[in-house]
Amino acid sequence: MKTIGIIGGMGPLATIDLYEKITFNTKAEKDQDHIHIIIDSYPQIEDRTAYILYGGKNPKDKLIESAKRLENAGADALIMPCNTAHFFAKDIEKEVSIPLIHIVKSTAEAIKNKYPKANKIGLIATTGTLKSGVYANILKDYGYHIIELDERLENDIMDCIYKGVKAGKTEEYVPLFQKCVDKITDMGADVLIAGCTEIPILVPHIKSKIPVVDATLELALAAIAFSFP
Amino acid sequence: MKTIGIIGGMGPLATIDLYEKITFNTKAEKDQDHIHIIIDSYPQIEDRTAYILYGGKNPKDKLIESAKRLENAGADALIMPCNTAHFFAKDIEKEVSIPLIHIVKSTAEAIKNKYPKANKIGLIATTGTLKSGVYANILKDYGYHIIELDERLENDIMDCIYKGVKAGKTEEYVPLFQKCVDKITDMGADVLIAGCTEIPILVPHIKSKIPVVDATLELALAAIAFSFP
Repeated sequence: MKTIGIIGGMGPLATIDLYEKITFNTKAEKDQDHIHIIIDSYPQIEDRTAYILYGGKNPKDKLIESAKRLENAGADALIMPCNTAHFFAKDIEKEVSIPLIHIVKSTAEAIKNKYPKANKIGLIATTGTLKSGVYANILKDYGYHIIELDERLENDIMDCIYKGVKAGKTEEYVPLFQKCVDKITDMGADVLIAGCTEIPILVPHIKSKIPVVDATLELALAAIAFSFP
Repeated sequence: MKTIGIIGGMGPLATIDLYEKITFNTKAEKDQDHIHIIIDSYPQIEDRTAYILYGGKNPKDKLIESAKRLENAGADALIMPCNTAHFFAKDIEKEVSIPLIHIVKSTAEAIKNKYPKANKIGLIATTGTLKSGVYANILKDYGYHIIELDERLENDIMDCIYKGVKAGKTEEYVPLFQKCVDKITDMGADVLIAGCTEIPILVPHIKSKIPVVDATLELALAAIAFSFP
């Protein structure tokens, strides 16, 4: 069994969600069957979106510091429960000798395996994640086409995340989220990606005609597969 | 702000509960206001109760290994979300140069501050925790008297924990748990301690005439107080 290192705290709740998803999806009959995980919950890592969109402080150094801390503590691979932080994936990989299991690659692999006929992807994420190109570049390599959203739709999704889930008003934003999902489906999407750690909280409240792939869950499953080869 | 190290994975769900309690009780307006926490979720640490009650494998070495890993990674203090593991507190303290914030001392301090007139304590815990003496010794130092439970009552509590919460049948065991709480109250308890990580899951479902102190929550609050001195 291999040890997983989590560069976490971006924010703490998203880290808890990933830790839970690893725990609940591990075949374990007793505590001792679970994976050895070292979590560096380091919320002092600067805001990723602020840096990419508005030129805030660069989080790169603290991300690398965290990666090295986990490598030194004995981690065999790294994962990050923050989609936007993957903008810095290559910077991190350069500085450590253990692999980073990539959230977007894990998600793309899952779509390839589960929905082999899928081509058009509806990506539900923050503007920061969209603008960072984290998803676009990798999904393109897999031959997927990301449906382009207009500004109105992008803003509605941001409202669902920031004014809804992050503000503790999930239920009030369910109708708007349902509308967003329906619109993206009507635009021809074969699969939706919940590419923001807040989105899976809205998903159980809506009905979708097409599959919704939870990026955090796929990352958890990829980490489990790595740990039990 | 100081860094907290969690010797975790005993089990992973109890670790998630503590991590959540620290997160929800930290005054934070943004991610960066949260505490830097390093969690060593190391479920391979041998079962504490099995060792104490039936002479299973000694978990001491792995507990010390985890403590050292966290100290080397930069933790300024250690905490453990497992009551029974505190049987080994002194063994761990001998091997590191950072303090261990003790779950029972944190709980006793909380009772002293919140309920200064309390004297008789009803301790709701596993037989392992009771037999380990982890609570008895420290509560005695604080001048508290622990109400002795008969075997029937001890077994009923064990059923609530193992056949109820741990088996995913919380609701079915609410009536039995209510009976246990009422009995201990009738025996003259001033305060109840939820001294097992499963008990706080039952507590919201019952009515108690006397205060119930959640040991995990008090440990979380003590860790926050240490981090922001």
